[in-house]
Amino acid sequence: MSLVSQSPLRAQPNKHRALAPDPAARFRRSLDHVAGDIERLLDRLLAPQASPGERLRPARLLHAMRYASLGGGKRLRPFLVVESARLFGAPRRQALMAASALECVHCYSLVHDDLPAMDNDALRRGRPTAHKAYDEATAILTGDGLLTFAFDILSRSQTHQNPAIRIELISALARAAGVGGMAGGQMLDLAAEGRFAIGHRSDLGFDDIRTLQAMKTGALLQFACASGAILGGADRKARSALEQYGAAIGEAFQVADDLLDIEGDAATLGKTAGKDAAAHKATFVSLLGVDGARQRLKKLVGKAERSLAPFGDDGEVLKAAAHFIASRRS
Amino acid sequence: MSLVSQSPLRAQPNKHRALAPDPAARFRRSLDHVAGDIERLLDRLLAPQASPGERLRPARLLHAMRYASLGGGKRLRPFLVVESARLFGAPRRQALMAASALECVHCYSLVHDDLPAMDNDALRRGRPTAHKAYDEATAILTGDGLLTFAFDILSRSQTHQNPAIRIELISALARAAGVGGMAGGQMLDLAAEGRFAIGHRSDLGFDDIRTLQAMKTGALLQFACASGAILGGADRKARSALEQYGAAIGEAFQVADDLLDIEGDAATLGKTAGKDAAAHKATFVSLLGVDGARQRLKKLVGKAERSLAPFGDDGEVLKAAAHFIASRRS
Repeated sequence: MSLVSQSPLRAQPNKHRALAPDPAARFRRSLDHVAGDIERLLDRLLAPQASPGERLRPARLLHAMRYASLGGGKRLRPFLVVESARLFGAPRRQALMAASALECVHCYSLVHDDLPAMDNDALRRGRPTAHKAYDEATAILTGDGLLTFAFDILSRSQTHQNPAIRIELISALARAAGVGGMAGGQMLDLAAEGRFAIGHRSDLGFDDIRTLQAMKTGALLQFACASGAILGGADRKARSALEQYGAAIGEAFQVADDLLDIEGDAATLGKTAGKDAAAHKATFVSLLGVDGARQRLKKLVGKAERSLAPFGDDGEVLKAAAHFIASRRS
Repeated sequence: MSLVSQSPLRAQPNKHRALAPDPAARFRRSLDHVAGDIERLLDRLLAPQASPGERLRPARLLHAMRYASLGGGKRLRPFLVVESARLFGAPRRQALMAASALECVHCYSLVHDDLPAMDNDALRRGRPTAHKAYDEATAILTGDGLLTFAFDILSRSQTHQNPAIRIELISALARAAGVGGMAGGQMLDLAAEGRFAIGHRSDLGFDDIRTLQAMKTGALLQFACASGAILGGADRKARSALEQYGAAIGEAFQVADDLLDIEGDAATLGKTAGKDAAAHKATFVSLLGVDGARQRLKKLVGKAERSLAPFGDDGEVLKAAAHFIASRRS
């Protein structure tokens, strides 16, 4: 499939180009558009009616799953799925299905990471975390339910008419989220806090933190970009370009997060600030310093932009996304 | 596909039949054989080497996943997958892949159910539960990792050459395990303990308990039987017969479990006995009495046997399994 998408933005005659909104504005508009679509789709998927093969959906668990997945978040991962899929001409409604599955996995990870036994957070997106709003047992099941539901969504024919494509998405998501991806990254992160008397802060260098974060945060962001390529039947080269972009913004995301942790406050973050320092946790900032971390961010944005070169103007919105991630304030 | 399998047992001439071991002995042999195969397969699947798409498998998490899934259990669910698949001539190596995925889901559910916030159990199969052997955070991640890994396994071409069949397995497993299945059943079970000030013991009748248990325990047992039919490309009628068998033994399993909870002891059970009564939990025994529960068991075994009628002699080992489930002592 050609790298040149059939998007309306591309079809616009050059003489009107000056009138088109700049990439940053188009990024904002797309992010909002995707967020609205994902909200509606998840609301529909997490309806009280049971699907074939299900017995019933117990109200308390369904409500908690909705609490954890609806009504919040920038929906950055879904945006990346939709924009990546657009590069390859994949239908938006299919991209939204894959994106909603990915968002379920992301939300499950937040619910479990917030648990008292893990990061013990009371606030998330300015609201009580799931175990505070409900209780610990319900929160554990909420995460389990959302993770399982992601694979239900990806297995549906609405995600893609070709079962082989759905299988490719499922395989990629399972590996991005599992022991060799996100869950493994969270394990390394807990070890980095010195919980298990091995791998405490002083043991971890820059490469260790990069690996940890590439697993904990990067793997899902990379899947977001790869899934668009998978849905659109992209060739290996194009998929690899998207994955490199995903890796760069994944690391940028975490560097920005580490900067926010020392610079932000709970009001703008919607979560507790200063936790990393309190936990004596090695971060990009503790390793590189604030200025070093800012330089690293700049370098990563450049890397993300260069990865998109094969897509020409069609990559502008994703480039704007990289800038947004690097400069976000919450 | 014909209901008549191509199994060697079937091909055996009638004059030798009298010399063949009885169904109960064949059941025992098959159960042991499957247990050995599953142990070896899970050991290989959960190797330290990362799969493509994974970064690395952190030692602590991988060890805990192995601790929770290797070296224990009767492997009843894998046995059901293998024996069901055999009815339809599906290759054993494919059945073992599906069975190992199912066992990962089963083991994840044990790890999470044992957590302090859930059933707070210290013993499982005569060993410390995962959060006792490791810690709570590691146990949460262990469950998450095993659940995710199940879908990784099912997405592999070794499970079946046809992606559409793999998708059918994934869809069925996700629904059996999720909010409308096992996870939802655990939610109902916690509610039945009166934790959330609704649905406490006196509210639950026989049908409620049946629904709860059909979700919590029955859904995975039913999937075990259905997955053999899916792998073997069985027609709707044959698959439905297997699912009815699965539903009957699922309920029988739970009735037997409830009887064991009041009759067993920790030494033979390998877990803490008498917990249901201590939790004032409605069970089949509290609702039907010991004699009523024993009668119910008998009825369910009859139902399981009748469901297997279309398979003739090929169903004998599964019939023996139903008797085993009803009469088990641990």
